[in-house]
Amino acid sequence: MTTSSPIAPALLALDWGTSSLRAFLMQDSRILDTRQSAHGIQHLPAPGVAGYRQAFAELVGDWIDQWPQLPVVASGMVGSAQGWREAPYVRCPADIADLASQSVGVDSGMGPEILIAPGVLFDQANALPDVMRGEEIQIAGALLANPGWRQRACMLLPGTHSKWAQIEDGKIVRFTSYLTGELFSVLCRHSILGRLMPDAAVPADDPEAFALGLDTAARSGPGDLSHQIFGTRTLGLTGRLPPPALADYLSGLLIGHELVSGLATAASTGPLVMIGAPALCRRYADALARLQRPVDAMLDNTAPAGLWHLATAAGLVRS
Amino acid sequence: MTTSSPIAPALLALDWGTSSLRAFLMQDSRILDTRQSAHGIQHLPAPGVAGYRQAFAELVGDWIDQWPQLPVVASGMVGSAQGWREAPYVRCPADIADLASQSVGVDSGMGPEILIAPGVLFDQANALPDVMRGEEIQIAGALLANPGWRQRACMLLPGTHSKWAQIEDGKIVRFTSYLTGELFSVLCRHSILGRLMPDAAVPADDPEAFALGLDTAARSGPGDLSHQIFGTRTLGLTGRLPPPALADYLSGLLIGHELVSGLATAASTGPLVMIGAPALCRRYADALARLQRPVDAMLDNTAPAGLWHLATAAGLVRS
Repeated sequence: MTTSSPIAPALLALDWGTSSLRAFLMQDSRILDTRQSAHGIQHLPAPGVAGYRQAFAELVGDWIDQWPQLPVVASGMVGSAQGWREAPYVRCPADIADLASQSVGVDSGMGPEILIAPGVLFDQANALPDVMRGEEIQIAGALLANPGWRQRACMLLPGTHSKWAQIEDGKIVRFTSYLTGELFSVLCRHSILGRLMPDAAVPADDPEAFALGLDTAARSGPGDLSHQIFGTRTLGLTGRLPPPALADYLSGLLIGHELVSGLATAASTGPLVMIGAPALCRRYADALARLQRPVDAMLDNTAPAGLWHLATAAGLVRS
Repeated sequence: MTTSSPIAPALLALDWGTSSLRAFLMQDSRILDTRQSAHGIQHLPAPGVAGYRQAFAELVGDWIDQWPQLPVVASGMVGSAQGWREAPYVRCPADIADLASQSVGVDSGMGPEILIAPGVLFDQANALPDVMRGEEIQIAGALLANPGWRQRACMLLPGTHSKWAQIEDGKIVRFTSYLTGELFSVLCRHSILGRLMPDAAVPADDPEAFALGLDTAARSGPGDLSHQIFGTRTLGLTGRLPPPALADYLSGLLIGHELVSGLATAASTGPLVMIGAPALCRRYADALARLQRPVDAMLDNTAPAGLWHLATAAGLVRS
């Protein structure tokens, strides 16, 4: 009737994003058990609070029945303005204590309250503002795994909206988002570029085409990107690249632009640490190596450790 | 039964693009009469050759009945690989004589042959290749209107795929395309940015937001664009810009990037001449003025004169 673990859990941690909900039973920053559902905040089983409660109960209701006193923490879009309850952004510089103190509670509907982590805001005059929500917890997990990075490091989280976060003295002091992944996706799926691609939005892992995009980015001047994006079409029309390689060129081009810009601020800022899905991190790491800036470490799935870190800082568990 | 003009026409000129077909009865580079239909090559009344013939007959059949000996010329996507008949690209440097000599004929189905203009290809080692189709005829029209530009000029044709073409000795010697207009459209309509916009893809003509985007572009380093695009979202989230102004910021940003890159090659290359729809040209001209590079001339609807120029060079009419 119930699932049981040989070690009693100390925390239920939820990584609740736009497209999925992942749950982790934890003890001492280790994962005892994990579950996942497709009930991200844009795919709930019912509208509003009822949908959140139902998604929660369906995925982890039996765990709550078994351990009704278990503290529950959550991070990600569940705390956005469109989420279960908004946890307003914490301003940079922000560390795990700031995140914990500005988390907000919501009634799970099953007894325990869920503590939802805030996002982080970078907002200074004469710069574009920036926001993150979810990545700050992944970063907290990385800092828990390697406290040496707390003093100074650059955390790179590639993805739909890639983040480059500068860490100093355990705090996120500034960060920059790049629309790289979404730009790739909308161009392949909704622009003229996709017409020449055999299977839109899926790079074929053609290393030469990827390198061509990367090298094009590396030698570009300000403003050149939209011409170089158009090059995806002309390289295909002129037969310089075969259709299956066009997405690789575009991927190399967009990643290359992100790296050129990101490295301009991160080059002398301590270790470069990448957090994300291994295949994507490998793509970025290959690109960084070509730009003579090897990655110092690559981590995956650091959100559970980050949520443990948050629960510790909030006094819900003992480290 | 028939429409009649006080002056007998010497040429029927067709500007046949993706989304529309425009026809001009001409005499001595002047337009005597004009008609338009929505039968662009992607919106034909029937598939294949039959669709082209039907679109032609519906729009100008009575003109052909009245003047069966009238020469007919066409430019635009009608000559693409997806068009009525492909007129392969002419390589740079290319002048009107090159375009005329490499035009291809197609049976209109009503008697006269239609001479279809080729596009132009820029293809050199160590640079991205580039293509245009239709713009070369607009440029030919501008050069007919002002022969002084033949020696040296930069022609800027803003739009979905903006073109910057360098003219030397009457030839298009090189050109660069920017995906500016399409990038704006797909980002507003298909990315997360559109969610904060009240009416996607329609700038509200907020001069301050447009200037903010432009200034952001002007002070950017290589690779910064996708971060600055994400700024459309964060400027909205933080309330720095109201929702109706977000499209203006994005428009200024993307146009600014195009201008920064385009001016880097065009700054010392003679007059800067803009060809295009007045509202869009005005937007670009405002941006150029802010970047201290005023436009020397703005022209609209130069395709008919360019087609006359082509017909002259092909020996179909006497100039």
